[in-house]
Amino acid sequence: MAYINIPEGLAGILGPLAFRPETAKPLGELTDVLLRGPNTLSRAEREMIAARVSWLNRCHFCHSSHAAIAASHLGGTEADFALIDQVARDPEGAPISAKMKALLAIASLVAEDGKKVTPDLVERARQAGATDVELHDTVLIAGMFCMFNRYVDGLGTWQPDDPTLYRQLGRTIAEQGYAGSAEAQAAAMSR
Amino acid sequence: MAYINIPEGLAGILGPLAFRPETAKPLGELTDVLLRGPNTLSRAEREMIAARVSWLNRCHFCHSSHAAIAASHLGGTEADFALIDQVARDPEGAPISAKMKALLAIASLVAEDGKKVTPDLVERARQAGATDVELHDTVLIAGMFCMFNRYVDGLGTWQPDDPTLYRQLGRTIAEQGYAGSAEAQAAAMSR
Repeated sequence: MAYINIPEGLAGILGPLAFRPETAKPLGELTDVLLRGPNTLSRAEREMIAARVSWLNRCHFCHSSHAAIAASHLGGTEADFALIDQVARDPEGAPISAKMKALLAIASLVAEDGKKVTPDLVERARQAGATDVELHDTVLIAGMFCMFNRYVDGLGTWQPDDPTLYRQLGRTIAEQGYAGSAEAQAAAMSR
Repeated sequence: MAYINIPEGLAGILGPLAFRPETAKPLGELTDVLLRGPNTLSRAEREMIAARVSWLNRCHFCHSSHAAIAASHLGGTEADFALIDQVARDPEGAPISAKMKALLAIASLVAEDGKKVTPDLVERARQAGATDVELHDTVLIAGMFCMFNRYVDGLGTWQPDDPTLYRQLGRTIAEQGYAGSAEAQAAAMSR
């Protein structure tokens, strides 16, 4: 049971979002802009950053959800799920672009402390083709998941084990987005 | 110089916000709702949480700014600045309410890892009078500053030393809020 009286049966962040619509609105808009808005990084690539940071922060709900959303954006096959799993655990060893490896290295340091990012690492990303907006968004996505992971864990929310639930939630969010589909998201996760 | 090409002379978070208006909008709304919206915690109390978390994360710009905003909300005397300084460094020893000490203890753990919050600590806050909304907002404010601290540090922004600049910025934001006063904020911080 969560530390505050959130609606019964809502997993992870869905409970706190339903509890406090005033903050859910800008949080949903921020997530939609960063993870789904127009961008030279694909939606799958941005969700990889979310899954990697959440894995480093050991937030089971956020990691499982965003890994499933990333895999859904790629097509949702078992190979897609295996790739995202590898990206979250070992981005340098995964079969992804040099640019994504460099951006994920930056995101991984931001998860610890923004001050750990170095000019050399930024230069590595630029050499691999990263733009200013891509660098900006990588740092902010990593920061945003440091917020979400703490929000979900710090309120003691229910975080189911069953991977099927996360795959359902991942498909729903990949198709419908973050803002405005709270009912569909809750239905995907219902027990 | 910051890692990305943000407008010249903008300190801390002001640069990245000006660089990317699409994300600045929901970030500003979230900050305004949490730190200035209707609440049983005063604006000064919510800024204390912001300053404490930013101090723990050693983000000079965010700590100095939010300490100054908190002190401005209290009246802006030297005694107010001294109190906020003590709250950021040693909340248990500061002359503040038992409820605020308990909420700051929760926020301090959230800054490390949300999973460190315990039912006992939540119960301590409840015994001191904390409501569900106050507990929710404490966790989310702490999480939000884990995001902002990383955003500001991870992009290598300019963070001036001069305390006078932070006092000017603190007064401006305490009076005018976060959303919609980017020009006034930049002017307060100009070099």
